[in-house]
Amino acid sequence: MSGEGKTRRRGYHHGNLRQALVEATLEMIRERGPLGFTLAEAAREAGVSAAAPYRHFSGREELISEVARQGFELFAERLEKAWESAGTPLKAFEAVGRAYLDFARTNPGHYIAMFESGVSVAGNAGLNDAAARAMGVLTRAAEALFAHLPPDRRPPATMVSHHIWALSHGVVELFARGAPGRRAPFSAEDLLESGTAIYLRGLGLIPHDD
Amino acid sequence: MSGEGKTRRRGYHHGNLRQALVEATLEMIRERGPLGFTLAEAAREAGVSAAAPYRHFSGREELISEVARQGFELFAERLEKAWESAGTPLKAFEAVGRAYLDFARTNPGHYIAMFESGVSVAGNAGLNDAAARAMGVLTRAAEALFAHLPPDRRPPATMVSHHIWALSHGVVELFARGAPGRRAPFSAEDLLESGTAIYLRGLGLIPHDD
Repeated sequence: MSGEGKTRRRGYHHGNLRQALVEATLEMIRERGPLGFTLAEAAREAGVSAAAPYRHFSGREELISEVARQGFELFAERLEKAWESAGTPLKAFEAVGRAYLDFARTNPGHYIAMFESGVSVAGNAGLNDAAARAMGVLTRAAEALFAHLPPDRRPPATMVSHHIWALSHGVVELFARGAPGRRAPFSAEDLLESGTAIYLRGLGLIPHDD
Repeated sequence: MSGEGKTRRRGYHHGNLRQALVEATLEMIRERGPLGFTLAEAAREAGVSAAAPYRHFSGREELISEVARQGFELFAERLEKAWESAGTPLKAFEAVGRAYLDFARTNPGHYIAMFESGVSVAGNAGLNDAAARAMGVLTRAAEALFAHLPPDRRPPATMVSHHIWALSHGVVELFARGAPGRRAPFSAEDLLESGTAIYLRGLGLIPHDD
């Protein structure tokens, strides 16, 4: 799968200022974190004047929100594709987990904008819809796992998706970022897969001692 | 429990330059993230000249590493205290989880320096020891849970501590930071407790249907 930041260096052409700024911001986020640069610096990185961003964005926050929105759209696409590609609900659930890690690795700037920048979905319908679409895949993947259980034995799918989301995010942040010296004795993929399997067993979805 | 950043404003006195810089850096990290400021800006925040930090630190990375080291020492103390305060291994394990969340809430600058700044423990014995001490509490807490099981039924404690660490970290980052609009329908405490309980049930440590 292709990562982010592959297109920007083709240069800025009239008419794509908005997207050039988004892609410059992606690069700044990767290099300096979501708080480590000004709007003027993002403009310079995009090769435009410090005033130019205001033709499209009210400020830095709105620009980062747009990066996050595009990130959630891509994230949702990747998760949906993973979910649809696998046969059984369990295999699909595992495939969604792998797609989560894969997205965080290939799109670090998007991932940081989405989950570490502090942007708010309140009052931002586009960002809210994109985030809900992505999170909806996790929840539907969880619901499919329980569909064969009698209703009174089904755990709340929202709770399950939040647990899996937290576990996935923790694995990404601690073990998939390649911080030297913080290498776990297990790969990020193995940790997420084994952790998810134990968790699902705890929900009675995978037999014990298999 | 007292949080960070309570003492710095008492001012800089001769002899505590090193700690004044550490505390100024804590504040910069909280406000701008670990990549969002220069060493000169940290010096200004501490009320000293831009050259002064070099009397104690080789550069920005070493200063942030010292913040992280102090953070891991505090973190280890809090986790140890929580572990020792509770009666059964299960209650102790849950108390460690709550102490983890509590530390992340009360010491956000330390937490970010420890886990989000990219500082490396390689070649830094003090940081490495402090981190190992903190992580050791999680591993010992996991081992105590399995002590009553026959050896061939005990899961690897390192794997378990890594799963719980990832889940705790994910809950902290996604649900304990108070990002507006990213409010989960569950509190961070409830998510960590319920997620851990399901996980431990998956390990056969809590009976099903209790």
